[in-house]
Order: sequence, then C-alpha cells, then structure tokens
Amino acid sequence: MTYRRLKHSSRNLVDQLSNLKFFNSSRSSISAGLQSRSIQTFELVKEDVCYHKHIVSRHICFLKGSGIGIPASLRGVQSNAFRIHSRNLASVATVPSRNPSFAMISCDDISYFKKILGEKGVVQEELKLDDANTDWMRKYKGSSKLMLQPRSTHEVSEILNYCNSRCLAVVPQGGNTGLVGGSVPVHDEVIISVSSMNNIISFDKVSGILVCEAGCILENLITFLDNEGYIMPLDLGAKGSCQIGGNVSTNAGGLRLIRYGSLHGSVLGLEVVLANGTVLDMLGTLRKDNTGYDLKHLFIGSEGSLGIVTKVSILTPPKLSSVNLAFLACEDYVSCQKLLSEAKRKLGEILSAFEFLDVSAMDLVLKHLDGIRDPLPSSKHNFYIVIETTGSMESHDKEKLEAFLLSSMESGLLTDGVIAQDINQASSFWRIREGIPEALMKAGAVYKYDLSLPPEKMYDVVDEMRERLGTAANVVAYGHLGDGNLHLNISAREYDDSILSQIEPFVYEWTSKQRGSISAEHGLGLMKANKIHYSKSAETVQLMGAMKKLLDPNGILNPYKVLPTSISQSGVN
Amino acid sequence: MTYRRLKHSSRNLVDQLSNLKFFNSSRSSISAGLQSRSIQTFELVKEDVCYHKHIVSRHICFLKGSGIGIPASLRGVQSNAFRIHSRNLASVATVPSRNPSFAMISCDDISYFKKILGEKGVVQEELKLDDANTDWMRKYKGSSKLMLQPRSTHEVSEILNYCNSRCLAVVPQGGNTGLVGGSVPVHDEVIISVSSMNNIISFDKVSGILVCEAGCILENLITFLDNEGYIMPLDLGAKGSCQIGGNVSTNAGGLRLIRYGSLHGSVLGLEVVLANGTVLDMLGTLRKDNTGYDLKHLFIGSEGSLGIVTKVSILTPPKLSSVNLAFLACEDYVSCQKLLSEAKRKLGEILSAFEFLDVSAMDLVLKHLDGIRDPLPSSKHNFYIVIETTGSMESHDKEKLEAFLLSSMESGLLTDGVIAQDINQASSFWRIREGIPEALMKAGAVYKYDLSLPPEKMYDVVDEMRERLGTAANVVAYGHLGDGNLHLNISAREYDDSILSQIEPFVYEWTSKQRGSISAEHGLGLMKANKIHYSKSAETVQLMGAMKKLLDPNGILNPYKVLPTSISQSGVN
Repeated sequence: MTYRRLKHSSRNLVDQLSNLKFFNSSRSSISAGLQSRSIQTFELVKEDVCYHKHIVSRHICFLKGSGIGIPASLRGVQSNAFRIHSRNLASVATVPSRNPSFAMISCDDISYFKKILGEKGVVQEELKLDDANTDWMRKYKGSSKLMLQPRSTHEVSEILNYCNSRCLAVVPQGGNTGLVGGSVPVHDEVIISVSSMNNIISFDKVSGILVCEAGCILENLITFLDNEGYIMPLDLGAKGSCQIGGNVSTNAGGLRLIRYGSLHGSVLGLEVVLANGTVLDMLGTLRKDNTGYDLKHLFIGSEGSLGIVTKVSILTPPKLSSVNLAFLACEDYVSCQKLLSEAKRKLGEILSAFEFLDVSAMDLVLKHLDGIRDPLPSSKHNFYIVIETTGSMESHDKEKLEAFLLSSMESGLLTDGVIAQDINQASSFWRIREGIPEALMKAGAVYKYDLSLPPEKMYDVVDEMRERLGTAANVVAYGHLGDGNLHLNISAREYDDSILSQIEPFVYEWTSKQRGSISAEHGLGLMKANKIHYSKSAETVQLMGAMKKLLDPNGILNPYKVLPTSISQSGVN
Repeated sequence: MTYRRLKHSSRNLVDQLSNLKFFNSSRSSISAGLQSRSIQTFELVKEDVCYHKHIVSRHICFLKGSGIGIPASLRGVQSNAFRIHSRNLASVATVPSRNPSFAMISCDDISYFKKILGEKGVVQEELKLDDANTDWMRKYKGSSKLMLQPRSTHEVSEILNYCNSRCLAVVPQGGNTGLVGGSVPVHDEVIISVSSMNNIISFDKVSGILVCEAGCILENLITFLDNEGYIMPLDLGAKGSCQIGGNVSTNAGGLRLIRYGSLHGSVLGLEVVLANGTVLDMLGTLRKDNTGYDLKHLFIGSEGSLGIVTKVSILTPPKLSSVNLAFLACEDYVSCQKLLSEAKRKLGEILSAFEFLDVSAMDLVLKHLDGIRDPLPSSKHNFYIVIETTGSMESHDKEKLEAFLLSSMESGLLTDGVIAQDINQASSFWRIREGIPEALMKAGAVYKYDLSLPPEKMYDVVDEMRERLGTAANVVAYGHLGDGNLHLNISAREYDDSILSQIEPFVYEWTSKQRGSISAEHGLGLMKANKIHYSKSAETVQLMGAMKKLLDPNGILNPYKVLPTSISQSGVN
C-alpha cells in the first residue's frame, strides 16, 4: 500500500522533500535516494541513513545512585545541581514525627543480628550508613544507625520475624535511586539492603524467562541477557545502580513501556518475605496460571510497604538487531497526537519510543547544555518528537520509517524531520531529550511534576499553567507521549512562595479532575504519601490501608511512605 | 543478513525446496518464485503466497454458550458430545453441601429486588433460570430460583449491599461460557447477570483505550474496534457469547497472549462492587500510574469471588493489515522448542501465534472430522506447528516468514511445511488445530487437563503418561507452545476407573513438581477449587483466604469456588 502511494504521488513528494531535511552533509544524498526510490523501489535500501545496534547503551549511568557513575557531562554541575535542588525543589514532604510505637535498637538486637548474619552483614560504620541514609538527589536524609545485609531469603525472613516481634521499623533498600524518598529511612529505621542477594538463578533460552535475586543490578541483567540474545523489558536511566527488586517494588516504567508494557505484564513470579517473616513463594515461571488470586501484583509497585521482594521471575523479549531514530517537528499539539496515532498504525510492531518536548524545553537545552546543536536549525518549531523503532530486519524497518515520514510530511502532520545516520547522531538526538532535566537544573529554580494524563488533555495543563504564571516563570513540558506521561517543569530564577501557590494545589487538582495520576512512574514514597487522594478514591485508599494492616499489622515495613500517615499508622499497636 | 544467506546458499536451498511443499496447485509456482528470488531478490514479493485480513473471524461462534451459535460443524455432534461429556469427563468436582449460613430467598427479598430493579430485572421464569443454572457444557447445574439483571453499577451496589446484609449467596454471571463451573450456581445462589450492562462508555482514538461496561460481549467490542482501526488484545473461541467482565474476572488467555500478553498488562482500570456494596472506582485510563497499591489486579482472575466487575478500561492494540499462516512439521519435540526460539528472534515483532499438536492429535482429527485434509500428506510427522504472523506491511511479513522457513529447513528444524495462500486455506489449517476437542469428543471417553509447564518439560508428561497407560488409552497433546500451555487429553473407548487412577493424582503431582499450573487458562471454579495446593504454596493459599475474608467476610460472593471450601467458608458467620 505504502509503496503504491509513494509511486503515485512521487512528484508531490519530491517537491516536499526539501522540507524533510537530513542531518549534515548526507542530507542531499538521502533526498536523492528517496527521489530515486519512487522510480526504482528497492535498490536504495542498503544505502539509506540508519544506525543500529547498541543504541540502548546511551542511557548508561545517567541517573546512577549515590553520585557514583554520574556521567562526565553531569559531574561538573553536580554540586551546583544539588545546591539548586535543596534550595528549589517543590513538594518536599513535611517529615512526619517518629512513630513512638516503634522500638529503639538495643545492643541485644545488634547481637542477635550478628548471630544471624555474621559480623559482615551488620553495618554500623558511619560513612556507609551516611550513604544508605541519603537518597541520590541528597533531598532526603534519615538517621538510621544500622544496616543489615542478608545473603538469602532465609536471612531476610529471620530478620523480619525478629523486627516484627520487637516492633523495629525497617526500610528495604535496593540501589537507592528512587526520586520520592521511598528508599531511605525517615528516622532511625533499620535499613535492610538486598544488594548482596545478586545471583542469577536460571534462564530459559526457549521461553526467555529469567529468574534472579532481588539485588541484581539492572545493567548486569541487561549484559547477561545480551549474551543470551535477549533484552530486559525495562530500561532506565538509573540502570547502572538500580536493582531488579527495587524496580519491581516501585513498578519502574522507563523507556520501553510503550513497546513491552508494564512490569505487571512482564513479571511472572515473585518471592516475597512478609513483615512477620513468612516467605511467600509465588516464584512461578509460567506465562499462564489461573489458580487462585494473583497476589504477586500486590507487591509490584507497593514500594516495599507490604513485603520485601527477594526473588523475581521475569519474561524477557528477544533482542532484535535493528534500531532507528528520527527527530521530528510538529507545529501544534494536535499534530503530535495524530502523529502518534499514525505511528502506531504505520510503524505498528516496530515502534519502540515516542517522546516529545516543546519549544521551551528545546530552547532550554540549546541555551544551557554544551555541544548541543539543533538538528532542525532552519527554523523554530513548537513541538519536537523523537521516534525510535526496533525490529528484526534492518531494511524493512528503514523502509517503514521512511514511508511513514514521507506520508506524514505529505499530510502536513510533520513540518520537518531528520533520521539519525549513525550511533553518534542518534546519541545527539537522545542527548537533547535526556538533557532537559540537567538544563532545567542549570536554569535556576525548578518545580517538577510527573503526571499521567489522557493524551488529548496532556498539553492543556501546560497552556493553563502558562496563563496562570505569565512572565513569572518558564513552563517547560516534555515526556513519554506514547505512554501519556508528561514531565511538567516550572523554571524560575529563584524559589518563590508566590509562584508555588500558583502551581499547587492547582496542578494536583487539575490532574485529579482529568482522572490523571500525580505520579506516573516515580511512586509516592515519602514525598507524595499524603497526596494519594488526588489520584485514588477514598474507598480505594481505605482498602489499601486494610491491605497494609492485614499484611503488616505492626506497620514496620517502610513506615511513613506510600499511604497517608493517618491510614498507615492506624494499624500500629 | 537473511538475504545474504539466501544468495550464498541458493543451490542448497533450491535442492531442499522439494521438501518445503506448498499447498495444491500453487506449489510449483511458489518454489519457482523462491528459486528466482535468490537471483533477483525483490521482484517476487507481490506474487508470493499469502492471505491477509479478516482471518481473526475464524474463531466466531466456536465455543458459544448455551448451544446458541454453535457452528454448523459442531451442531451435528452436539447432543452426542454432551452425552459423552457427562459420562466421561474426569475431575468432576464433588459438589459441596449447601452452606447453612446462607439465607433462603423470601418473598420480602423478591419485593425488595423488584423495587430496585423493576419487574423486568427480576427473573423467576423456569426456562430462563434453567439456562442460567446450567453451564454450556451441561456439566454443572445449580438450582437457583432467582436471577437479577441490574442495569447500572448503582443497582449492582444496592443488590450486593442487601444480599450481604441478609447473607444471601450470589453468583456473578457474564456470558456463562466458563469451563470449570465457575459461572453457574452450585445450589440456590442468586444469579446476578451483568448482561444488561453492555454500553461502550468511551474510546480514545489516539491512545486506543476503551472503557466499557462489564456486560459487553467480546465480539461486539471486536467489531466496534475494527471500525476504529483497533483490535482487542484478547481473542477467544467463545467471543460470540463471553463478556468482557467475565474475561477479566477469569483472566482469559486465548490466542493473542503470545503477542499482547495477559489481561494484567492490558487492563488499565476496573470498577468493582465489593460484597458489601462498596463501589471501588479504579477505572483509570492511564498506562502509567504509581500512586499506591494497584488493587485492580486482585479482581483480575479471582472469578467473581472478591467483587463484581462492572466497568473495564483496556488498552487495545492498533489493527495491522497483514496476517500470514504456516502449517509446519517437526520430527521431535526438541526441534519444536528450537523452532519457537528461532521464530521469536527471526519473526520477532510479527509473531502472533505459535501452536502445536502431536501426531496423535493429527490422526484423531483426520479420522473423526469431515472435510479435513492433511496439508502435508506425503508422510506422517511426529509434531505439527501452526505459526501466525501479524504485521503492518504485507510484503515485509511474507519476506520474513519465508526467509525464516527456508533457514529452518536448512538447519533441519523443519521437515516439511506449507504457507496458506488465502483465507480458505488458512481456515482449513486453523480447523485442524481447533477441531481437536471436537475430534476427541467423537473418539469416545476423554480425560482433559489444561496445564502450564516450562516449555522444556512440557512434552515429558505426555511421554510419561503414554508409558503409564500403554495400550489402555490414546494420549493426545496439543496447545499453545508459545505460552507454555499444554492441553493434555487421554482418549479411551470408555470411562474406566482403572485408567483414571493411572492419570490422577499423577498428572497433578507431576505438574506440581515442575512448578507448573494445573489450570493455565480456565481458572479453578468449582472443578478444581480443592486442587489449588498443587499449584500454590500453603502460605499463598492462606493469604488468599485472608483476602477473601477481608473483602467478603460473609463469603456470599461465588461460594464453593476458587478456594478450598475449608478456607473460603472459614470466614462465614
């Protein structure tokens, strides 16, 4: 079908090709290639612009935890960034006072833990504790005096059984890369780190099912699978530090969600230790199992407040060889939406990312980041789209992508666009999309919101916010359009209560009215525990509280997080 | 890559092409086509054998409920089949005695329900009740005297609130197409049919998110979406009768699971009415929402025993235009597995079904069904594979499929194969795969098991079963290899306790040892409620019981089902 249209409309398309620009020197040759294709359809394929393979490595280290592994481009701004952060971040939760129901750690407790875990598994050194008490943004800081490092599910069970009987509060910790204060203590909770439980247990090469311990670092799993010809169904900026147990516990989203769906679909089984030490073996490796209630889902995204995930079974997709990337421009938000609709149909099975940024985000990146060039320099556009495709045959994927771009140009959805020709150009495109948070930090104070909204409403909140704020602040929007996930940022010279009062509670109320989510992918943690009612009904929150009471009657698991304090503490003796 | 290999090995491939046969008269032209492709690569594409579009309609009516809409091919055997069924089905559950805690329906109750629902919504006619009391296989039969037909969530809420206060047991019913006795009363439970709640509430053309009431018939949703350019992520033989609320409540699997995953991934939101009438509004339409525990998953697959699903929000994939089907032969099970592995990689993003049957299943179909021809008649093969691809560009898909088949022939994984050239041939291939249950019924007594097993172990149970039974019975295996779902059937001339004792509990114990599931896609219902421990650990079942008590303390929702009676009734006052 596409080829027929290409042939029939070749003259018009050739005329329009002056608008579809290609990167740097290759632009003319590619345009020529596309012209000649309309006459001689297939010969050109191998010469077309494209890059492939290894593009996934672009995210390495971007959000690595604890300052280790921060990429060079960020290192320079690190201290400054943290300063700006601590000065400017909106929605810093009011720290709730320590729940007096929880016991204080005694010498007897330490002795008991040493008996279970040995000396090595009981950490009391201040330096190590300081790292574990602090989140990677240095926004949240607890005062725990004890970190335990179990090496097996049995040890986790023994620890929890003891803590529950003593009413000692605990915070489960993986890579500590969370963004909402969920993985660090609020007060003196015992830190239970699963980092030492990092074995791959099994991998089935036919089914692609991986079973591993919770402490496996995501990037290590990606590397392991790469050798087996598979990939992880999730990919995050934090992959160099984050652990699969934490990914599951926070229902991490990431860049592959549009293609491979959420962890509720990919995770096939879990082993979880409950607050009282009971080990729940739900570690199935089956795609289909309809025998009773599927309880594992309760622990996916409950941020360690219902149990500690100790093992994970996950379905991994086969690795495909061809990856393409396009950087495109649209004049209005409606066109962005229509382009998404078209991409879903015309790129269909190969679409693997559909990201957007508005002109404010683009300006910010061009202004504040070094070495960034506008891939479409001839004029400014209101919206930019990054489309990635992943498939099993390079020639097919390129052909589909180019046909899609041509028809989108023809129909007026696109006003300009380039296709990356090699991994460097692809990286430079991703650098624009992924450099926005860094550019925002450099620009001054920033109020950050991570919203999920129906796609057709997504940009309305940006327009309304601009109207509310006028010239007082710069409203910047970007995000995962394909998933309905908007990162709304308000950038100002400095932090100002009058600006904040224009933003909150308006942004939460607006999101709530659209039945959106006030936390698309970061979770609630400590930061938004008391804001849950903006996205969940009273009856639902009440039932969550009942679940918490049922599974953790003493409330020892990750206290002060996820649920409003009034609800999560009502079960504490 | 594939094309290079095609060119380099063209002579060998051409020699081997005599093994890769194509259907009927077209065989020679296709072989010629593949030969010439090795020289002139692309010209042939448009002439290649293929069928496309509308193939999804092949399943219409196959398992329709209550005898209505049974396809012509089945109608002839219907009465006989049911007779054989009632005589021969293994694992018919012992019907538990009526729980005396439940109240009996009084005249006052009827008056109350008429006040809420009007005369029309309260069904007491014997004929209608007879249908609703009986499952479609006529294997299970309740004795309810009352069916309620609410038209809104509010009415469902009022009914349940009342029933709970009176301790009247209820059974939620959708299309009543279940296979394990989950959707009919066991005794005199009030039937709550959601069939009248069949409105489509909204559809977002950009995101593909559909929101509808629970009583929408799956096929109607498929038709609606077809006009919008989308498809449902699940497709079942029962689609002409089954309802989306029932699909969700039973976590229906079906034919598209290998491509689109389970309903835990596709369902974005639910509205559910709890036993006490509380309406849980979890009807989100967001792909990402990490605000608290994701409670909707509790109701997916809990078979109406925790709440009644009243509305569903579901992510639907865009409709793609190209569908291809191949019928293939392998000599051993290891080759079937390897072929799956290769298909996942080489067909990658276009693979949409990977089904298998063994030679016993093939023989049975050829012997007992009229009008079936062996697509590979030159010799018998030990295993047959049906591969379906679905993609957005026909020429690409055909090219991928043919390249995959050629390389699989070359490597010896395949011994023979055909590609359907049109929808009739495709239907005839599917008829073989889908005709197996009918052929089994015609062959005599049948003991049916629906197992989920690790792919590498899946066929071992078949071999072991053959060894145990010797000449006493015919062991027949088929199923969704791509999902690890085996339909194991033991066919005998007549029902015999000595045969049954050779099968059970062996088959359950064997499955349990492999950490398999004794119910891959049908649920537990009444049939297997007391067998849950074969697939779930004691701690997990105990927690399920606690959930049941929490959400339905009087145990009025679908009693005697899903959980062992000892557990599900322990909460009844």
